Amino acid sequence: MVNFFQSIDAVEIFDVAPRDGLQPEPDFIPTSEKIKLIELIADAGCKKIEIASFTHPKWIPQMRDAKAVCNGITRREGVVYNALVPNLRGLELAMECGLDEVVTILSTSESHNKKNLNMSIDDSLREIEKINSVAGKNGVRVRSYIATVFGCPMEGNISREKAIELAMALEGFGSYEISLGDTTGMANPASAHTIPKTIKGKLSKAGLAVHFHKYHGLEFANNFAALQAGITRFDCAVGGLGGCPYAPGAKGNTQTEILVEMFSRMGISTGINLERIYAAGKYGQSLSTLLTQACH
Amino acid sequence: MVNFFQSIDAVEIFDVAPRDGLQPEPDFIPTSEKIKLIELIADAGCKKIEIASFTHPKWIPQMRDAKAVCNGITRREGVVYNALVPNLRGLELAMECGLDEVVTILSTSESHNKKNLNMSIDDSLREIEKINSVAGKNGVRVRSYIATVFGCPMEGNISREKAIELAMALEGFGSYEISLGDTTGMANPASAHTIPKTIKGKLSKAGLAVHFHKYHGLEFANNFAALQAGITRFDCAVGGLGGCPYAPGAKGNTQTEILVEMFSRMGISTGINLERIYAAGKYGQSLSTLLTQACH
Repeated sequence: MVNFFQSIDAVEIFDVAPRDGLQPEPDFIPTSEKIKLIELIADAGCKKIEIASFTHPKWIPQMRDAKAVCNGITRREGVVYNALVPNLRGLELAMECGLDEVVTILSTSESHNKKNLNMSIDDSLREIEKINSVAGKNGVRVRSYIATVFGCPMEGNISREKAIELAMALEGFGSYEISLGDTTGMANPASAHTIPKTIKGKLSKAGLAVHFHKYHGLEFANNFAALQAGITRFDCAVGGLGGCPYAPGAKGNTQTEILVEMFSRMGISTGINLERIYAAGKYGQSLSTLLTQACH
Repeated sequence: MVNFFQSIDAVEIFDVAPRDGLQPEPDFIPTSEKIKLIELIADAGCKKIEIASFTHPKWIPQMRDAKAVCNGITRREGVVYNALVPNLRGLELAMECGLDEVVTILSTSESHNKKNLNMSIDDSLREIEKINSVAGKNGVRVRSYIATVFGCPMEGNISREKAIELAMALEGFGSYEISLGDTTGMANPASAHTIPKTIKGKLSKAGLAVHFHKYHGLEFANNFAALQAGITRFDCAVGGLGGCPYAPGAKGNTQTEILVEMFSRMGISTGINLERIYAAGKYGQSLSTLLTQACH
């Protein structure tokens, strides 16, 4: 029934502002400010935060202080702090920092995978399999992004089958959660509903999340459509920060505070304090030069 | 079923940018520019456009050139041009300009009605009944807004029963279409679904539309939820222009080009050319000082 969402009374929010959000910012943001952003997000009650990336600084200079950020935050009980790791070396660095969880990424689109990660999809799969293996042996959980699920700026629409194939492979490697990414805001409520619904039906162990980037507000219709498909895990970034440096025309992430507001108005619990998440968003926006440009 | 919207393959777009959109702008926009905006919206294929308001200029100085705008546009076959009329005098002026349709307004909230129209709801009902009577005798159609349906910034949530009562009264007066207004962007997908669904069930002759103002993108989830309730008529404004001068914190209308984009991606026909509606939106935004302020 269209009232399906009424049977969902709680959702999980994964805030990616400190990594996916800040990553494309051209001006280096001081470590102390990254740390402050993370603390504000945790202060607001968010229980899972993407705090850094262990990609080589030559590719993503913004994230070169990943170690200092991981070591500089005050870890709170019950909060999961994770970081993006593109390869085994990244995983090692993340484990040295004592992180309990890491995040991997690959795309449904060969062009985007190549551009973003400098590897073919098959090579990415092999690397992620190794990451899962080593992480598993060390008690570290692995979450896995699939990018360009709802469309690729270079290749257009990618077959649903590719996303299904990758999701099942990642689950097979041991990833506990798969996040379906709309990297450049190409989704619409129909695809935002049916693709997650289809993939959810194919997974048996891993949880499923959605990660919609902005399209001038359309992302909220997409998030709501995904909720109606039974999705209860939502990736977003305070302040609506972000974008992909290697995808033309990419805009920021779904704005956390507005998504939380939406759920709050609907009577769906997020565990997040509205006033504080708005404050975290304002602080995040104050760190950004990209967002200000986007207005004009 | 949650796939209910798949049985809808076409919707109607009512662009209110030239009136609801421009109305709160503090700097007077030249008549020629208002006319150009209207022409661009019609060029894009929009079949119903709110072009002016015959409210007294002392209340809404931006709309003081209503007559010149109505007489200055090139009327296109198959396009409905209408104007807001607060009273019989306004209706007369609209008819002198040869308009085939006028729009009335009242609120579910006494406070907002008083602030916006300087009348009680009952007085508004009486005036609208007269407007319908005179209009009907002159072959002029009447469309009726109900404001603050999804919440009032001064009174909070208004009972659903009030909106139902007003909708049925307006239908009884002869209004051919009722538009449910979310004046200050307080709706959420649950209310955006159930209130229109409930009211649709109570009407027998009049059509039902929705008119969601912005809340940082949440309006798209609201519009989509309304679609799922069977609504096929959507009020919006190119460029996302607008706001209510008498409602604190009010933001603009749903941005037409993004709403049209959403429907287009879903395979739902609007009859509107995307490229041209984006162009109309850009032009509309160039006329605005309010929107630029909103960014900061």
